[in-house]
Amino acid sequence: MRAISQYQDIIQAHFEALNLTKEPNNLYEPIRYILSLGGKRLRPVLTLMATEVFDVDCEKAIPAATAVEVFHNFSLIHDDIMDDAPLRRGNETVHEKWDLNTGILSGDAMLILAYQFFENYEPVVFRDLAKLFSKTALEVCEGQQYDVDFETRDDVTIPEYLKMIEYKTAVLVAAAMKMGAIVAETSTENANAIYDFGLNLGIAFQLQDDYLDAFGDPETFGKQVGGDIIENKKTYLYLKALEFSKAEEKEQLLHLFSIHPSDNTDKIQSVKQIFTQTGADAATQQAIQGFTLKAFQTLDKMNISEDKKAILKAFGNKLMSRNV
Amino acid sequence: MRAISQYQDIIQAHFEALNLTKEPNNLYEPIRYILSLGGKRLRPVLTLMATEVFDVDCEKAIPAATAVEVFHNFSLIHDDIMDDAPLRRGNETVHEKWDLNTGILSGDAMLILAYQFFENYEPVVFRDLAKLFSKTALEVCEGQQYDVDFETRDDVTIPEYLKMIEYKTAVLVAAAMKMGAIVAETSTENANAIYDFGLNLGIAFQLQDDYLDAFGDPETFGKQVGGDIIENKKTYLYLKALEFSKAEEKEQLLHLFSIHPSDNTDKIQSVKQIFTQTGADAATQQAIQGFTLKAFQTLDKMNISEDKKAILKAFGNKLMSRNV
Repeated sequence: MRAISQYQDIIQAHFEALNLTKEPNNLYEPIRYILSLGGKRLRPVLTLMATEVFDVDCEKAIPAATAVEVFHNFSLIHDDIMDDAPLRRGNETVHEKWDLNTGILSGDAMLILAYQFFENYEPVVFRDLAKLFSKTALEVCEGQQYDVDFETRDDVTIPEYLKMIEYKTAVLVAAAMKMGAIVAETSTENANAIYDFGLNLGIAFQLQDDYLDAFGDPETFGKQVGGDIIENKKTYLYLKALEFSKAEEKEQLLHLFSIHPSDNTDKIQSVKQIFTQTGADAATQQAIQGFTLKAFQTLDKMNISEDKKAILKAFGNKLMSRNV
Repeated sequence: MRAISQYQDIIQAHFEALNLTKEPNNLYEPIRYILSLGGKRLRPVLTLMATEVFDVDCEKAIPAATAVEVFHNFSLIHDDIMDDAPLRRGNETVHEKWDLNTGILSGDAMLILAYQFFENYEPVVFRDLAKLFSKTALEVCEGQQYDVDFETRDDVTIPEYLKMIEYKTAVLVAAAMKMGAIVAETSTENANAIYDFGLNLGIAFQLQDDYLDAFGDPETFGKQVGGDIIENKKTYLYLKALEFSKAEEKEQLLHLFSIHPSDNTDKIQSVKQIFTQTGADAATQQAIQGFTLKAFQTLDKMNISEDKKAILKAFGNKLMSRNV
């Protein structure tokens, strides 16, 4: 097996060579643009890695990995419209750089393009990949809808929140890994086990995102620290703080999450203080560790060598100790 | 084979029985809504009909026909957003009844749902259907983009216009029929011939739409007569009138297509007069007949009985003599 950075290089080189110079230009230029903004390429790397975990050369997984990344970028374009976000990876979002209609239509085209990459495989593998992809893509839409619904609800429970991040984020991480298993044509047991590995790691990853958004180091965290607090976003931290808080703290937190001050410094500080004194921060850390552990336990169900398991575990640990 | 109305009844009954009661409700309710608005169900009917042309019971084609209709309705939701249309089939459009985000996300989910209906077939048929579907869906996006691009261009040529309507409308009619051939597992020659039949008929159908929009009988034409003229839409009629007009007429037409009067009665009358006196109306009728004839000629390449050919021809003639 190769190092993560090598998989990243393979994906990067592949995307640079991907020829999407087609007509009409106004449809394909925004697609080339969003794909050129880079990002961590986490999901396609996972597909390549999973293929090699099951002893097949990752070259074979490149089309599937490409489909996953193209789909992920489709969802970013449409999510950015829905969130009215001006920036993505430090650059203008597609609907800002062009317009709403371009964002909708280029996104639609990317969703279809993603399916086309599976055409590189023979019928049975093609069907297995496309079926998993459709199921996953639909769940991502459902997760996005739950996220939208939660904005206007004040009775979101922790299990509901976990289901939302599972659908919106974790299922794609899980599917990216299972696609590697499908391409490698390993056993159904192995394929399902690596799906569960990815699913739990994906949930831990998103909870880590919630945590870092509030408690990340401004020096190393890519985004603005406190972004979720500014937007009154109901994260795991917030829901746990509500659960653990006494009457007075709760009232204060509800008030802080109803205001939009022009200067957010005090608000962020006060909210973080409540997160800490209620123990919500520690509970979030505990949940991250819990889901990471659950991911590692699925390795026991996998029929692969011990050194392959060690590699997956090292990857999980690296992901969970990140500060960006 | 059955009568068209019987295929319509089968499709109608199927859509009424389709259970899309899933969570989150805010994602699936708009999908149920748009699918309940009905319409002619032309495309799925074509899939059923094509299957029986190749001597296989149309029951087998219901999932493919459903995919085509669900895709068509996805494209209506997103197109209505892009056109800022308030009404669809006499009812509120999805983005009007709910909001922009609901329109985007429900549309995305429908595009994915369409693919899932192909999962009812075994791997080789599944792959053939999904491949044709992806190619077609991408062309529909490209056609929509050309249509958007043409709005701000004043040098659109007739061949460009024909390509636009081929992509935006005709390829889906063609693919709907070819899917019937794929489900029936007939020869590649037959499948390609019925695709060409559908493609040419689809172009004729769209040109007929352009014609009826200006010259249809207000008593029988469902939509407002003159809608394209009001919106200064560059249809086949308009492009032909520009081509055929003398300097003075041309100047008058360009002026009429630059204004947005509050009362459109005079504008519509003047434009229609130019369409008639330049011979653009006759040229459009000629083009409709030309593409219909081309469709009928593809029947010669089909290895099916003469009575099946007669049924397809009767269907084509019926479609072209419509006044709605």
